[in-house]
Amino acid sequence: MEIGMIGLGRMGANIARRLLNGGHSVAVYDRDRTAIDELTKSGSNPAYTLEELIEGLTPPRALWIMVPSGEPTHETIVSLLPHLTPSDIVIDGGNSHYKASLDHAKLLRKHGIHFLDAGVSGGVWGLREGYSLMIGGEAEDIQALTPVFKTLAPAPDRGWGHVGPNGSGHFVKMIHNGIEYGLMEAYSEGFAVLEKKSEFHVDLARVAEIWQYGSVIRSWLLDLTVSILKENETLDGIAPYVQDSGEGRWTLFEAIDLDVPTPVMALALLTRLQSRDTASFSSKLLAAMRNKFGGHDIKKQGSPAR
Amino acid sequence: MEIGMIGLGRMGANIARRLLNGGHSVAVYDRDRTAIDELTKSGSNPAYTLEELIEGLTPPRALWIMVPSGEPTHETIVSLLPHLTPSDIVIDGGNSHYKASLDHAKLLRKHGIHFLDAGVSGGVWGLREGYSLMIGGEAEDIQALTPVFKTLAPAPDRGWGHVGPNGSGHFVKMIHNGIEYGLMEAYSEGFAVLEKKSEFHVDLARVAEIWQYGSVIRSWLLDLTVSILKENETLDGIAPYVQDSGEGRWTLFEAIDLDVPTPVMALALLTRLQSRDTASFSSKLLAAMRNKFGGHDIKKQGSPAR
Repeated sequence: MEIGMIGLGRMGANIARRLLNGGHSVAVYDRDRTAIDELTKSGSNPAYTLEELIEGLTPPRALWIMVPSGEPTHETIVSLLPHLTPSDIVIDGGNSHYKASLDHAKLLRKHGIHFLDAGVSGGVWGLREGYSLMIGGEAEDIQALTPVFKTLAPAPDRGWGHVGPNGSGHFVKMIHNGIEYGLMEAYSEGFAVLEKKSEFHVDLARVAEIWQYGSVIRSWLLDLTVSILKENETLDGIAPYVQDSGEGRWTLFEAIDLDVPTPVMALALLTRLQSRDTASFSSKLLAAMRNKFGGHDIKKQGSPAR
Repeated sequence: MEIGMIGLGRMGANIARRLLNGGHSVAVYDRDRTAIDELTKSGSNPAYTLEELIEGLTPPRALWIMVPSGEPTHETIVSLLPHLTPSDIVIDGGNSHYKASLDHAKLLRKHGIHFLDAGVSGGVWGLREGYSLMIGGEAEDIQALTPVFKTLAPAPDRGWGHVGPNGSGHFVKMIHNGIEYGLMEAYSEGFAVLEKKSEFHVDLARVAEIWQYGSVIRSWLLDLTVSILKENETLDGIAPYVQDSGEGRWTLFEAIDLDVPTPVMALALLTRLQSRDTASFSSKLLAAMRNKFGGHDIKKQGSPAR
């Protein structure tokens, strides 16, 4: 089918490519002209403004937004609005907060425009392996977009589905990422203990590889870990500094709002915050307290670790 | 090859069956006569005492112990010792603490008996899908047992390997289980938040199924979760009470000994303890403190939840 893609970053460009490979007609727009030209080489139709993109598509249109969540997504939807016609469908495939998606659905509905919130997982591997798609919205809109979902998923009948009304697609994706934080942290901690147990000289990459087959902890994240450890077992050149991109903290806020205890998802997030807190005020204060009540030594800033 | 199997519980019986299916000659012993007779029907050679088991095997023998860790494993090794001859190989496939395995290796070595500590993962699915095997010991002993490992693993060249000296096999298995606790807890927490978000009426089994293909969190534990939720989405009849069988706490002790921060593995264990602490003294004390300083209501024992 015909679809317009807005946002050609890592995820958007790969989604456009997978759709092109699947035989769809894909019109592309990005703020960055070179990103458009890159995709044009792969067979998509270039549009250098949002207006041009919309004019080039036959109503009712399908417009897939794949830009950063928050303001960029909101601005894109607001900018699209005056150019759309009733029955057009806007799909937000980014990591928007589900409450923003509820607002966007409402805003668009006022103008007769349909909205789907699609949680998309698969990272840079999605182009080859397909994406997992969790979609919130009306069944008829999902029906209309089914050819696109069948192409993007790992197989036409697997890895995608309608999970509920508007908002639920991004809600489910948020929880997916909250779980992801916990899984990643659990593996990382386990390998850290193995690495520290120097007397056994454990070959971490070898162990990870053994676990890939038959073990209870086999997973796609473990497969990635094997390739990381094979390339760089000592993790040379990688700072112990971990970013987070929002969904982990939203999951925690939501769990608290719902009174659901989620200690592991909480700690997985807080451990990332801690990794960035190299000037930890709390650790300094703790050290000072130990000194005050017990006369324990304080390690001076800048002195080598013992 | 010829092997003696001691302990025909869930894991031991399945390991014996997989070896029989692989064409090995398996002699079996268990304290429970019916377990022996059950395996005999599958083609193994019965032995009703340890002595009989050992006498029936041609030296140098291979004896695989698959009994509960701690005293049962230790007693089995001590009972075997007088009947063994130098160059026999004892394999402990249970979840023994690695320090116990170091002691067993030492004890057996004094009598010229060789020892391998094999961490075995795969649960009740191992019979069909094969086991992941993490083996500690001497290369020549692993070489001697290679036909057995090739049969037990998911494929002859995958899912098993020599991870280091004696002790390292069980050490790696311990860490495997510590990671497993974290992974299980992360999934469980995520589904708990989804379940509580009643306004979206999320079909948990459907979501789990979508995540199986293409998502970053796809894994074997997620596959199991799909079948659990399909059978019983509301988890009827299951008490919120989670046991632990040792490796999770050992992982935490070891992490502390090694000064490795492992918040997620720690919390995953503590959450299990909490699930069993239905008469929580700390929660009672917290409630009493809130009452004392702020006059906040105390919920009386036995009154319904609000």
